[in-house]
Amino acid sequence: MELLFATSNRGKAKEAAEIFKKYGITVKRFQFEHNEIRSESLDEIAAEAVSAAYAECQTPVFVEDSGLFIHALSGFPGPYSAWVQKKLGNEGVLRLMKGVADRSARFEASIAFHDGKSVRTFHGACTGTIADSARGTGGFGYDPIFVPEGQKQTFGERIELKNNLSHRYKAILEFSTALASMR
Amino acid sequence: MELLFATSNRGKAKEAAEIFKKYGITVKRFQFEHNEIRSESLDEIAAEAVSAAYAECQTPVFVEDSGLFIHALSGFPGPYSAWVQKKLGNEGVLRLMKGVADRSARFEASIAFHDGKSVRTFHGACTGTIADSARGTGGFGYDPIFVPEGQKQTFGERIELKNNLSHRYKAILEFSTALASMR
Repeated sequence: MELLFATSNRGKAKEAAEIFKKYGITVKRFQFEHNEIRSESLDEIAAEAVSAAYAECQTPVFVEDSGLFIHALSGFPGPYSAWVQKKLGNEGVLRLMKGVADRSARFEASIAFHDGKSVRTFHGACTGTIADSARGTGGFGYDPIFVPEGQKQTFGERIELKNNLSHRYKAILEFSTALASMR
Repeated sequence: MELLFATSNRGKAKEAAEIFKKYGITVKRFQFEHNEIRSESLDEIAAEAVSAAYAECQTPVFVEDSGLFIHALSGFPGPYSAWVQKKLGNEGVLRLMKGVADRSARFEASIAFHDGKSVRTFHGACTGTIADSARGTGGFGYDPIFVPEGQKQTFGERIELKNNLSHRYKAILEFSTALASMR
């Protein structure tokens, strides 16, 4: 089975392709530049984006939107995670978190799939904490400052962990399971 | 003359009404909730928003979008200034700027006016610096941490300064001048 993934983020596409492979699904990237809507809901952002993607490619397609929600920062950077990463980097987030006791955070992912008729969304979350400093070079984005629950190392230090317990992995798992039942 | 201002921000509406009054223009607020687009351009954001506002009210209307662009933070919080203010507050911005030598920043405003046929945009900017701490209680948003160029006090400390040299004031000035020539 082949699936079209609309994204302009190569890191995300690569990661998704590796996970989908386990389920016998080949992912093809559909180069898609889109002005996402502003919303606090990843579901809403992904659902709007996949409708725009489908209008372009006219074939079943999915998008994925994800974000890092830091509890002590009222959910910042949340839906603007990619933009904040570009502007402030991990160094900026560490500054905001300096001396903050509550370091809990949550990665969330929403996948929206347009099957040609309607849109369905699938979800994944991964709880953890913000590290005191950036560690490791694996993954991308916030991976070097995120320690998943029950672990000591960041995703950046142990990238092999990520594909087995990340928000993205869980959303893809939910999506693949649904796909299997549709076939 | 009466003008319709589409906004959900009462602080902005109040400030604009006071400035417009000097030009003999009465501003009526049109309560407008809108999911703005994501863009690095205030013009683009305002132009899209005013088209949506016009579609609702079917009468000439303007919107205003503004942001604080901090040089050392690559323009953060920029187009997401309102959202960042809500999440991090001035305290968060001061944390990001702690010990940073280059404190230069720029407030920008774009007004987009829909006259029933087409959209025109007007601009204003106000350069200054980010203060070391929040000072004063005047205005709203980033006013207590912004010191306009050539001044020692923040907008929060001397709010009467703001209506004579702010980005909003300058954009309204440009807009009013254009309106006068249209009449």
